[in-house]
Amino acid sequence: MTRETLIGQIRSKKTFLCVGLDPDTEKLPKKLIEEEEDPIYEFNRQIIDATAPYCVAFKPNTAFYEAYGLNGINNLDKTFRYIRANYPDHFIIADAKRGDIGNTSTRYAKAFFKKFNADAITVAPYMGHDSVKPFLEFEDKWTIVLGLTSNAGSADFQQLMVGDKELYLEVIEKCAQWGTPDNMMFVVGATKAPMLEKIRKSIPRHFLLVPGIGEQGGSLEEVCRYGMNSDVGLLVNSSRGILYASAGEDFSERAGEEAKKIADKMAYFL
Amino acid sequence: MTRETLIGQIRSKKTFLCVGLDPDTEKLPKKLIEEEEDPIYEFNRQIIDATAPYCVAFKPNTAFYEAYGLNGINNLDKTFRYIRANYPDHFIIADAKRGDIGNTSTRYAKAFFKKFNADAITVAPYMGHDSVKPFLEFEDKWTIVLGLTSNAGSADFQQLMVGDKELYLEVIEKCAQWGTPDNMMFVVGATKAPMLEKIRKSIPRHFLLVPGIGEQGGSLEEVCRYGMNSDVGLLVNSSRGILYASAGEDFSERAGEEAKKIADKMAYFL
Repeated sequence: MTRETLIGQIRSKKTFLCVGLDPDTEKLPKKLIEEEEDPIYEFNRQIIDATAPYCVAFKPNTAFYEAYGLNGINNLDKTFRYIRANYPDHFIIADAKRGDIGNTSTRYAKAFFKKFNADAITVAPYMGHDSVKPFLEFEDKWTIVLGLTSNAGSADFQQLMVGDKELYLEVIEKCAQWGTPDNMMFVVGATKAPMLEKIRKSIPRHFLLVPGIGEQGGSLEEVCRYGMNSDVGLLVNSSRGILYASAGEDFSERAGEEAKKIADKMAYFL
Repeated sequence: MTRETLIGQIRSKKTFLCVGLDPDTEKLPKKLIEEEEDPIYEFNRQIIDATAPYCVAFKPNTAFYEAYGLNGINNLDKTFRYIRANYPDHFIIADAKRGDIGNTSTRYAKAFFKKFNADAITVAPYMGHDSVKPFLEFEDKWTIVLGLTSNAGSADFQQLMVGDKELYLEVIEKCAQWGTPDNMMFVVGATKAPMLEKIRKSIPRHFLLVPGIGEQGGSLEEVCRYGMNSDVGLLVNSSRGILYASAGEDFSERAGEEAKKIADKMAYFL
């Protein structure tokens, strides 16, 4: 998907919500577990249908599928296919946080861009340019580099000073030279909203993928204040707050309501 | 596998070779591609049989399986099972370079330690303590943190100065506080052998997983000189140099010979 198409979707739907598809069998409605042959896929399918009107992107985190072995990967594959077939205008992010030496990163890129047909993949920057650049070689596909993550551990390395700036800013500025605002985004946690201001100054045009609103404590208002640019420039993710709004039979209905609530706020900030 | 068992294996077999199982269908013998229903698995099986006498560890890199979609993951699963069933004394490393926020890292740990029954997984440190620690919660399992990688891109961030030391040393020293020499190792590229001296001084007891000898240009002699400790403390990986020693029908025989050559040198350094 091109940048123009993505921005067009955000403008026309008045939402920049990304729904994280992180299925956890311990939290899935009992009825699904008991009655469905493939409860994870059925859960995803119903969540996707219920939230699609209120979001522009879906983001399956690969860990939640790999944990269930081959069956989990099969569910991931089916989920990608379901979105692509039924919601072709939605942006699909494989939240995989991959990264390896050059020829190996190319294989991850092929796995997610070709086999799974995702629009974007999240990438860990620690191994440097030859681990990141292979993902940039695919037309109309996006590399979303971890910049400043939403977890407490971001203080351990990302926030250390490297010369006169924090490592996360060094990572963002260096990676921004390898890609363009048309094929690269950065993960910036909502829990670090004030630091968004500094990041936004440094990369005025890039889209930011922002996890951490809701359960992790980040504020949508702060994210918009510090992170929005003239093209919106934000994809804000919510996973648990939407997926597990209810563990009853009304889970998809409640998920849709939660997604709508966030989208309504987003429309206000737009 | 415990540290004592691993050291015992190295001492008794007089080798600390790890064979990287990175199957690439473009390099596989044509005969396998044409005649075998499952050429990747058949390739791995024959490589494993041929090299097992000369190595103590096998290391499938997950990218080389994910690139082939569900079939690739199925091959990875079968490869893990084959090693476990036939070579129960070999140490199995899932070279996955995973890392995510806490509850998500736990899922990756379950995927590789429980579903695939690997002994170890490689982990990317950028997200800090709550992304690394979940891997340490599994008994007799190992977390192998990326310290200083063998690729050119290691200069981009890993070798930047953070205060009075390089980031890679800060990563290694901080992570070493989260685990112990009994459940944590570090990846240190063979192409950076002189920096090994500094790393070895900083963490005298930890095992190091060393990729980059052979095709990438690292020297086994330098790795031993700077990296070996009184418990050996090294697992040195070779992938392409062994796997693709021949593209003919003698591929496994030649792979065995290459592995034996390296093991003979290792025996000398031991």
